[in-house]
Amino acid sequence: MSYFFLDEYEHMESYVPGEMPKDREYLKLNANESSYPPSPKVLEAMNSTEVKSMAHYSDPHCMELRKAIGEEYGFPAEQVFVGNGADEVLGFCMMSFFKPGMKVCFPDITYDFYRTYATTYRLNFVQFPLKKDLSIDVEDYVHTDRDVILANPNNPTGKAIPVSDIERIVAQDPKRMVIIDEAYVDYGNESCVDLVRKYSNLVVIQTFSKSRNMPGARIGFAISSADIISDMNKIKFAFNPFNMSTLAIVGGAAAIQDKDYFHRCINEVERVREMFEDALEDMGFGVIRTTTNFAFFHCPDVPAKVLCRELKKSGILVRHYSDQRINEYLRITIGTEEEMKQVLLKLGEIREKQYDRAC
Amino acid sequence: MSYFFLDEYEHMESYVPGEMPKDREYLKLNANESSYPPSPKVLEAMNSTEVKSMAHYSDPHCMELRKAIGEEYGFPAEQVFVGNGADEVLGFCMMSFFKPGMKVCFPDITYDFYRTYATTYRLNFVQFPLKKDLSIDVEDYVHTDRDVILANPNNPTGKAIPVSDIERIVAQDPKRMVIIDEAYVDYGNESCVDLVRKYSNLVVIQTFSKSRNMPGARIGFAISSADIISDMNKIKFAFNPFNMSTLAIVGGAAAIQDKDYFHRCINEVERVREMFEDALEDMGFGVIRTTTNFAFFHCPDVPAKVLCRELKKSGILVRHYSDQRINEYLRITIGTEEEMKQVLLKLGEIREKQYDRAC
Repeated sequence: MSYFFLDEYEHMESYVPGEMPKDREYLKLNANESSYPPSPKVLEAMNSTEVKSMAHYSDPHCMELRKAIGEEYGFPAEQVFVGNGADEVLGFCMMSFFKPGMKVCFPDITYDFYRTYATTYRLNFVQFPLKKDLSIDVEDYVHTDRDVILANPNNPTGKAIPVSDIERIVAQDPKRMVIIDEAYVDYGNESCVDLVRKYSNLVVIQTFSKSRNMPGARIGFAISSADIISDMNKIKFAFNPFNMSTLAIVGGAAAIQDKDYFHRCINEVERVREMFEDALEDMGFGVIRTTTNFAFFHCPDVPAKVLCRELKKSGILVRHYSDQRINEYLRITIGTEEEMKQVLLKLGEIREKQYDRAC
Repeated sequence: MSYFFLDEYEHMESYVPGEMPKDREYLKLNANESSYPPSPKVLEAMNSTEVKSMAHYSDPHCMELRKAIGEEYGFPAEQVFVGNGADEVLGFCMMSFFKPGMKVCFPDITYDFYRTYATTYRLNFVQFPLKKDLSIDVEDYVHTDRDVILANPNNPTGKAIPVSDIERIVAQDPKRMVIIDEAYVDYGNESCVDLVRKYSNLVVIQTFSKSRNMPGARIGFAISSADIISDMNKIKFAFNPFNMSTLAIVGGAAAIQDKDYFHRCINEVERVREMFEDALEDMGFGVIRTTTNFAFFHCPDVPAKVLCRELKKSGILVRHYSDQRINEYLRITIGTEEEMKQVLLKLGEIREKQYDRAC
C-alpha cells in the first residue's frame, strides 16, 4: 500500500474474478461466457473503414448505441446509459447516488461484486439470507427502508423473481432506489424494464456479456428515468467523458439490431440447458432448474469440491463456492451440445472413479 | 436532476468536449486527433480469430498491454496501470488518493478536465496563473504544500517544462503526489518517466489518443511506483474489474510494439508542424512554437473568434477559448501536409475578405 492510499478503503474486500489459468487449454465453463461468437454483423460493423481508422475520438454521448438499445426496449436514448460492462454501469450508478453510510440491501448469496462495491465505498449494507430453497424472500425487500440491489435471475442460484414481486418492491416507496441487475434475463425470463415507465426509482441494468455473446467487448447498459440517466451521465462526464470505444459503440448497436441471431443463440442455449439438466437428473444429480445460461446442481455421492477439482484435471473449468450454504453445488456454464455431452461423460467417469476408490 | 442525485455534486462543473457537428463533412482539427491511422499491426491484432470471437471476458489484469508498455519504458508490468483513455487513468488515480477537501493545484490555463474533476469531487484546488509568456512558474509548484497536476507539454499553450524542473517539484516533498500528464510528450519532448525510478510520489500518465493515432480505441496508462499502481488496481477491481476490452488490450500492445511506425508518424507530424508554423510566421501570424501535434497562434488583424467561425464556415474545425488571456489565440491540430496547406490557403482568404470588408 502506498503512503497516499486513502484510509477509507481499509475495509474494502477485493473482488476475485473467476480463475483464468493459462497452463493448458481448458473448456472454460466457469464464467458464464457464451460458446457462440457475436453476430457476424458485429464484426462487419467493427470492420467498417470509418471505425477501423480509430483516428477520431469516440462519441462521448454514445448516441448510436443508446439509440439502438432504446429502440429495442421502447425508450428514448435519454433513458439509456451505456458503459464498459454492467459493472461500470453499476459503478457509475453507485457513484452518482450512494455515499458512505447509505443504507442498501442485497441477498447473502448473489453476485459477489455488490459486496465488493459496498465494502469499498463504505455503504451501510445488510445481506438478507436466501430462503431454504435458495430463492429470495420478497418480503425482506418490500418491508425495508434500504435501497435494494437484486440480480434477477439471481447468480449463482439461477432463481428468478416474478415481475409482480419486483413491482411490489419498487412501488413500496418512491424514495427508495431499486437496482435490478438483469444479466441473465434473456434466457426465458420476463424483464422488469417496462416498470421504468411507471416508476422513477427503478434502475434496470443489462449486459452484452451473456445473451449477446460478447464479454470481451465490455458493454453494459442501464434503463431508468431520464433524470437518473442524466445524473449518471453528469458523473461519467466528470470521471471519464469518452468512456466507450468506437468499436464498442458500433459493435454494440449492430448486436442489438441483429434480433434474429440473438434469438437463435438464446433458443440454442435453452435447448442445450434443458437437455443437460434432464441428463443430470437422469444420472441422479440434484438440479436447481434455472432460466439462465448456466446450470446449478449437486452430486449425491461426490463432494462438489472434489468434482470441481477432478473436472479441472480433465480440462473443464466450473465454479465452486466456499459459502457453506451452497458449497455442495457447482455452477456450470451451458456450452454447445457437444461440450455439455463431454461434461456429462466426464461427470460419469469421475463418479465411477470415486466409487471405485471408496470400495 | 433526480431525487437521488447526491447533494455533494452541486458544485460540479460539467466537462464540455470539443464540438463534433454532424451537419456536414468537416476537416476536424479541433481535438488533436491524428490524421494517420493506427499501425497496420493494430488492425491485424484486432482481427485475429481469437480476439474477434470476443466470446471470453477480457483479462482483468490487462497483462499483455501492461507488459508491452512496461517493456517499452523499462518498467515491470507491476508499475503500469491501464485504462479506457488517460481520463479514466486520472479518474482512478483521483479516486484512489484524493478525497473532498484535499489540497491540489494546477495552472489556470490547462486541460479543462482537471478543473471538472476537482469541482465534482470537491477538492480544495488552486489554479496558479501562467506567466505572461504563457509558461508555468515552476516556483509556484515547488513551494506549495499542495499535490500537483501538470500537463507537460501544457495544453493548449504547447509549452513544455524541462525534466529538471519537474524533478525539483517532485523532489521537494515525498509526501506530496505529483501527477504529470504527458499526453503530448512524444512530439519532441523528454518524458519524466525515468524519475519514477527515483521518486515514489510521481505518477506519469500517457495516452494512445495522440502519438499512437487511436483516440477511438480509448487507451491510456500510468507509470508509477508498484505500490501506487497496486492501490489504483485495487480501486479498479472494486469499480470495474474488467475495464478494458480484449480489442483494446491486444490492439494497444501491437501499437506499442510497432516502434518503426510510431516514429515515422511522429516525424511526419513534426515536419508538417514546422512547415505550418513557418508559413504562419511568414504570413505575419504570431506563433507560440510548440512541441506537440498542434499549433497555437494568433492573427494580427482578424479576431480569433471570427477566424474560428469563418474557418468553420469553410469546413475546418479549430479550437477557440473563451478565457480572456488566450481568447486571441487559436489551437489547431497538425493534420497532413495537404490538409495544413488547405488551412493556410483558407486563413489567407479569410484575412483578405475581412480586410476588404473593413475598407
